[in-house]
Amino acid sequence: MSTSLKYPSEKQGLDPGSLVHVGDVHHSVTRITLVDYSKDHYEENPVDSVEEILEYRNKASITWVIVEGLADWTIIESIGKYFNIHPLVLEDILNTHQRPKLEEHEDYLYVVLKSLMPDNDHFSVAYEQVSLLVLKNFIFTFKEKSDPLLSPVLKRLQNSRGRIRSTGTDYLMYSILDTIVDLNFDIMDQLEETMTLLEDEIFSNPTPAALEKIHDIKREMVLMRRYISPIRDLLGGLLRSESEIIDEHTYIYLRDVHDHVLRIIESLETHRDILSGLIEIYQSSISTKMNEVMKVLTVFASIFIPLTFIAGIYGMNFETMPELKWAWGYPGIWLVFIATAAGLLLYFKRKGWS
Amino acid sequence: MSTSLKYPSEKQGLDPGSLVHVGDVHHSVTRITLVDYSKDHYEENPVDSVEEILEYRNKASITWVIVEGLADWTIIESIGKYFNIHPLVLEDILNTHQRPKLEEHEDYLYVVLKSLMPDNDHFSVAYEQVSLLVLKNFIFTFKEKSDPLLSPVLKRLQNSRGRIRSTGTDYLMYSILDTIVDLNFDIMDQLEETMTLLEDEIFSNPTPAALEKIHDIKREMVLMRRYISPIRDLLGGLLRSESEIIDEHTYIYLRDVHDHVLRIIESLETHRDILSGLIEIYQSSISTKMNEVMKVLTVFASIFIPLTFIAGIYGMNFETMPELKWAWGYPGIWLVFIATAAGLLLYFKRKGWS
Amino acid sequence: MSTSLKYPSEKQGLDPGSLVHVGDVHHSVTRITLVDYSKDHYEENPVDSVEEILEYRNKASITWVIVEGLADWTIIESIGKYFNIHPLVLEDILNTHQRPKLEEHEDYLYVVLKSLMPDNDHFSVAYEQVSLLVLKNFIFTFKEKSDPLLSPVLKRLQNSRGRIRSTGTDYLMYSILDTIVDLNFDIMDQLEETMTLLEDEIFSNPTPAALEKIHDIKREMVLMRRYISPIRDLLGGLLRSESEIIDEHTYIYLRDVHDHVLRIIESLETHRDILSGLIEIYQSSISTKMNEVMKVLTVFASIFIPLTFIAGIYGMNFETMPELKWAWGYPGIWLVFIATAAGLLLYFKRKGWS
Amino acid sequence: MSTSLKYPSEKQGLDPGSLVHVGDVHHSVTRITLVDYSKDHYEENPVDSVEEILEYRNKASITWVIVEGLADWTIIESIGKYFNIHPLVLEDILNTHQRPKLEEHEDYLYVVLKSLMPDNDHFSVAYEQVSLLVLKNFIFTFKEKSDPLLSPVLKRLQNSRGRIRSTGTDYLMYSILDTIVDLNFDIMDQLEETMTLLEDEIFSNPTPAALEKIHDIKREMVLMRRYISPIRDLLGGLLRSESEIIDEHTYIYLRDVHDHVLRIIESLETHRDILSGLIEIYQSSISTKMNEVMKVLTVFASIFIPLTFIAGIYGMNFETMPELKWAWGYPGIWLVFIATAAGLLLYFKRKGWS
Amino acid sequence: MSTSLKYPSEKQGLDPGSLVHVGDVHHSVTRITLVDYSKDHYEENPVDSVEEILEYRNKASITWVIVEGLADWTIIESIGKYFNIHPLVLEDILNTHQRPKLEEHEDYLYVVLKSLMPDNDHFSVAYEQVSLLVLKNFIFTFKEKSDPLLSPVLKRLQNSRGRIRSTGTDYLMYSILDTIVDLNFDIMDQLEETMTLLEDEIFSNPTPAALEKIHDIKREMVLMRRYISPIRDLLGGLLRSESEIIDEHTYIYLRDVHDHVLRIIESLETHRDILSGLIEIYQSSISTKMNEVMKVLTVFASIFIPLTFIAGIYGMNFETMPELKWAWGYPGIWLVFIATAAGLLLYFKRKGWS
Repeated sequence: MSTSLKYPSEKQGLDPGSLVHVGDVHHSVTRITLVDYSKDHYEENPVDSVEEILEYRNKASITWVIVEGLADWTIIESIGKYFNIHPLVLEDILNTHQRPKLEEHEDYLYVVLKSLMPDNDHFSVAYEQVSLLVLKNFIFTFKEKSDPLLSPVLKRLQNSRGRIRSTGTDYLMYSILDTIVDLNFDIMDQLEETMTLLEDEIFSNPTPAALEKIHDIKREMVLMRRYISPIRDLLGGLLRSESEIIDEHTYIYLRDVHDHVLRIIESLETHRDILSGLIEIYQSSISTKMNEVMKVLTVFASIFIPLTFIAGIYGMNFETMPELKWAWGYPGIWLVFIATAAGLLLYFKRKGWS
Repeated sequence: MSTSLKYPSEKQGLDPGSLVHVGDVHHSVTRITLVDYSKDHYEENPVDSVEEILEYRNKASITWVIVEGLADWTIIESIGKYFNIHPLVLEDILNTHQRPKLEEHEDYLYVVLKSLMPDNDHFSVAYEQVSLLVLKNFIFTFKEKSDPLLSPVLKRLQNSRGRIRSTGTDYLMYSILDTIVDLNFDIMDQLEETMTLLEDEIFSNPTPAALEKIHDIKREMVLMRRYISPIRDLLGGLLRSESEIIDEHTYIYLRDVHDHVLRIIESLETHRDILSGLIEIYQSSISTKMNEVMKVLTVFASIFIPLTFIAGIYGMNFETMPELKWAWGYPGIWLVFIATAAGLLLYFKRKGWS
Repeated sequence: MSTSLKYPSEKQGLDPGSLVHVGDVHHSVTRITLVDYSKDHYEENPVDSVEEILEYRNKASITWVIVEGLADWTIIESIGKYFNIHPLVLEDILNTHQRPKLEEHEDYLYVVLKSLMPDNDHFSVAYEQVSLLVLKNFIFTFKEKSDPLLSPVLKRLQNSRGRIRSTGTDYLMYSILDTIVDLNFDIMDQLEETMTLLEDEIFSNPTPAALEKIHDIKREMVLMRRYISPIRDLLGGLLRSESEIIDEHTYIYLRDVHDHVLRIIESLETHRDILSGLIEIYQSSISTKMNEVMKVLTVFASIFIPLTFIAGIYGMNFETMPELKWAWGYPGIWLVFIATAAGLLLYFKRKGWS
Repeated sequence: MSTSLKYPSEKQGLDPGSLVHVGDVHHSVTRITLVDYSKDHYEENPVDSVEEILEYRNKASITWVIVEGLADWTIIESIGKYFNIHPLVLEDILNTHQRPKLEEHEDYLYVVLKSLMPDNDHFSVAYEQVSLLVLKNFIFTFKEKSDPLLSPVLKRLQNSRGRIRSTGTDYLMYSILDTIVDLNFDIMDQLEETMTLLEDEIFSNPTPAALEKIHDIKREMVLMRRYISPIRDLLGGLLRSESEIIDEHTYIYLRDVHDHVLRIIESLETHRDILSGLIEIYQSSISTKMNEVMKVLTVFASIFIPLTFIAGIYGMNFETMPELKWAWGYPGIWLVFIATAAGLLLYFKRKGWS
Repeated sequence: MSTSLKYPSEKQGLDPGSLVHVGDVHHSVTRITLVDYSKDHYEENPVDSVEEILEYRNKASITWVIVEGLADWTIIESIGKYFNIHPLVLEDILNTHQRPKLEEHEDYLYVVLKSLMPDNDHFSVAYEQVSLLVLKNFIFTFKEKSDPLLSPVLKRLQNSRGRIRSTGTDYLMYSILDTIVDLNFDIMDQLEETMTLLEDEIFSNPTPAALEKIHDIKREMVLMRRYISPIRDLLGGLLRSESEIIDEHTYIYLRDVHDHVLRIIESLETHRDILSGLIEIYQSSISTKMNEVMKVLTVFASIFIPLTFIAGIYGMNFETMPELKWAWGYPGIWLVFIATAAGLLLYFKRKGWS
């Protein structure tokens, strides 16, 4: 998580548009995959250099270029040069600290967002920045890591029957966005499970470890909201966009993703409200426990301290203490002990303390 | 309640528009009821297959089709095919994790919302998703369960004198929305009763059980708000809508439901404010109780510990302790005991502690 | 107060527009008063049936009909029939759980709001719903109870010199709204007094009773805000309204009431901020008191427990305890007692605890 | 401060426009000062009756009338009559419970706001309502008290070189507003100083007195915000105004005051955030202190209670207690005492308690 | 930090437009540097008087004048006179308590903002006000201090290959804004580090010092937000501006800075949420610790006080206490001691207290 809060301070003083990768390096090698398809045709090949892509520029088919790993900035520079992309956009692609946004340029759309993936069995989330360059017949995807994030989209493309093969880059863009957004539902499921367990723990046994878990989840949720809520604006922007690249039949699909994002954000809000309640519950539980401890101490101390005093009296060595010589003195003092203890117990019982 | 926070993670990777029921299955059998009416005519029949509905398409009368149970997705698919409904709408009908919304399509309106019903004598709410497809002469209602939710509307239809029989599908839609929204007033009544009892409990005896009840109500209210507040936007959308399906005389009725939703939301806000106060009250009550316990302990310990010390002094075995031999030694020490105790009691009385 | 949170659950399943009184019945008898006035003429008569009102319809004078008590719904039904009022409006008049609102209909304005009156010397508020139907020459006022709420307006009307006699129903409506809104200033005065007393109580002696008072005031203020803040929108609506009924010279008066409502709402916000501070103060005061109690206990226990131990040593019965035989043994041990106690007292003094 | 929360409840039932002074009376005598100036001419005279002002109506010079003390409502009535001011405006001038606002009338602007002045060395603020009537060549200022609030403006007028002498009433209005708004910077300075002292106090020694100070400052700040934040809207209104009275070159000056108000409001928000943090700090400090007290008690009690018990054992009077006769019994028991105490001290040291 | 909350109270009563430096004086000497450049030409000279600048007015090259130190107001006055700047703008330049803002004047833009620089290894921020006057071929920068804040821009200018040399003053303005805004990323890095350390400290050992650190960071963040969030509006204003000075190709660069500001503000919000969680964590940690202390005390006291009482019984001096003479009396009492202690230990173990 520390990654996601770092800033490109190493970047300062460079010319705007300078291409330097800012962020953690996940792969030193950059892998490029090219997918080219039309209604009747599908091919998927690894590519070694940007130049191999160029020949597809004149074809009518849709070409999807997936770039995995951002360490080699020369690749991004070449793409920028050949496809006429603004230097600031290239800079943003290389800097993995972007907030999700949409930029409409004359010939292309630039979309950047974060995909969230569950990290391990603790509640922890891995973030990956995905950038899309959507041209008329080309779509570029830039990812930080080489992972199966987009394989559902590839599978759908390979399957020739789907709507996806006969539509343009806008529908492919929609499919990618949909896949990334729907991943969040998994995280929400996991979040809910974690919170149900945590709730039980806090009610039954409020330990500092539970408190730390609350804090960790809160941190994670603050970050998640920061990366998910701008996606709403991004999609709102696509819905309002009048770009030629987006076909009018695609809007209804984008509206569907928009609805999903709204549901995820609302669910985050719901969990946030519940979580903030949990801290109050924790504090109240601790207070209740302390109350119990105090009552036990008070009952013990308040019963035995007076008794000890009474025993102390008859342990004094005064020469003339007539009670000490009474035949019934000793049994009598036992009666006093028992009566005092019983009276105090009754008093505490009435107070509801034991 | 766990249901309402689950997400369609099993859905990922499918083509958008794939028809799969997402959510809990309440009924394995899907029941279809067809109601057809005009000013002078009323019929209500169970229907076995979608094809039986088709013959009503050419009639001038209003036809209302109620589908209960969503396990059999082929029914929804057939309706989609025959009435030309967009695949994404069909997908939304089958997925019972929707947030309330209105979608205006060219020939029909799609409305989805949640009905809330009190579950049992504890404060717990059952949620059911209801989808409406409103066409010019047809209205489809899709419900998760087979329950008497809509029977008030049916009764009003059977009664031939009402306005409802001589108006279009828009007025029927209004009646359904009105019935679902007004159910929330029951829940608000119940919520208020529960909270009044809880308040009394917290002031008189703040137990951890009360704390847990507060938390449960809070959770439930967070969910309720999540399902009710989008209904306001939904109705706002209907009021602003310029769809041909809605007659201008119906707007005043929709505005009435809108007012009801506003009242329910305000009432939820009111209860939320009061509830959040209750947690503070709980914490303060606990602190006050602990203070009382502490005072009892302090008074007991502070009186008897010094007395025990004095008794201890004269329990020492020094050879020369002149007091031990004084004739008035023993009565004198009793005076000291009584005076010390009385003095300390007076001191604590002045502090207002006993 | 329980009244104001109840909901018309008994209403469900009825046809919209069904006239049933929903709410507490304050009077079984409905009293109607008719006031008719023009610049030179004033009459004020009790009226037995709605039909008596009808003859005033053709007069040029302004007629004001005050209906007190809503149990007899036939009266409202007749008025609706004769003056062509929409059934939903009649339904709203009979249901005393409305939120304040303005409805503009073609021939009339419908205004509903709550008047707030101090209830008794505790801080408690009585709510009464007042509905206004404002026609061109007629104004109907529906009140729940028969009380002197509107007598200031009547007095002003009886006094023939005022502006009120020579203007239309819009100015009368303004006068009624102004009278109802200004009543809230009384409540604010009372609220301020109560809070000043409460503040003193909490700083000097934070008892659970004070906590309960805070909670009661908070509840009451939540309700007040709920009934007052929509009046702002209502008046905003009147100011923006282009209804023929409102003369352009009346706007400046409506703006004045609007200003008053803003002042009342701001004052409520102010008190709410201060009140929420009071709970924090209460909790801090309790903690401070507990701290004091703890210090007393600690000082007593920490001084006398060591002393008791020392006394205990010389109460042991070992055969060879040389100190016991020393001539200065007993005085010496007193020195030890005094030195120990003094040392500890000094230590606590330095810590600032006693 | 109690003044500023009082409401004109004594006003109810009066005709709107009735002229009655509502608020505290500061001066029974009303003082009028007339200032008349143009580029080359300046005079400043006390005035006894409104009629003396009238002759200035036909002059081209700017006339500024300062009315101090509002007890004599006949003066305001005369001004209203001669200069054609709406009765509701006159009523507002006399009621010193206004919220700051701007009203644009056909021939004049009505501006009302509160000036805030530091009251004494405690943090306490005195409020004074200032009303301005801005006509084409006349400006009326109504103040509650006779104080040197506006003397900086008078000084600038007397000095013939300034821009102020050659511009219209709009620039004079600006100068008055600027003077009143800039007074708040003093209060902010004082507020900051008070808060710095309070912070130190709370960290070093969190007493109930500090708590009370926090509460007082909070109350004062709530009131200040209530009187200052509407001034922003007032100035916003002047900037958007298209009144003939305001010359286009004056807008840049008004924008400057607007900036000052924004800075003051932001500073208030800043202090509010810090203050609300202080209460949390206070509570945490109290808890920390209590923790310390508890540790001392626990260490003392837990060390000496076991020791006392051991001493108690050898104070028992059993006939056969072999240890009592051992030669090394007594020194041995001292070893036990010391070892036990040392062991426990070590245990608490490890826990970090002493 | 105290500086940033001070107000120009010393300024009151002066004519608006009076040139007085308000704020802390950092340098008594004012240093002026002149940079003149075009595509092929670059010069950078110190300048002694404003008059030396004037000759550059007729050149086509871009001239950048950097004024460091504001104590000598005559320099600002001369610049105002020669370049026709409004007196209020000059006044704002000299007053270092401005909130960031943009003012569009006919011939120039006035931009004022705060640069934030890390102060030392504690989390503390130094603020410096930077004002920009952007004319067609001239740009003036006014800074409080003489520091290397703008050296990255100068370096880029010296390097003749960059875009910056062939564009106008708008691009230079962008470069300056970008440099100042990007400095905040450093501060965010530092803030994150400080907070991670603080979190660990609070969980492991919640001391009052940690509490004070939280408070200090909170104060600093409140101030930072106050100075950064208006920069968003400032840049929004530049983006919407239709000034001739800004070339259409520069907008995309300004949008980039705008994105950076958004990221910084979001990051501030994130940290604020986490920080406010930390105070709750602190309080809960303290309560948990106190609970532990209480348990130790309770266990010790509750075990040894009863034992001491039993020992006390057999220390009494009654003549007839048969147990004292039993052969197994003494060993028997040891059994009682051990059994009692074991029983109580078991009881507390079951409660989970030790």
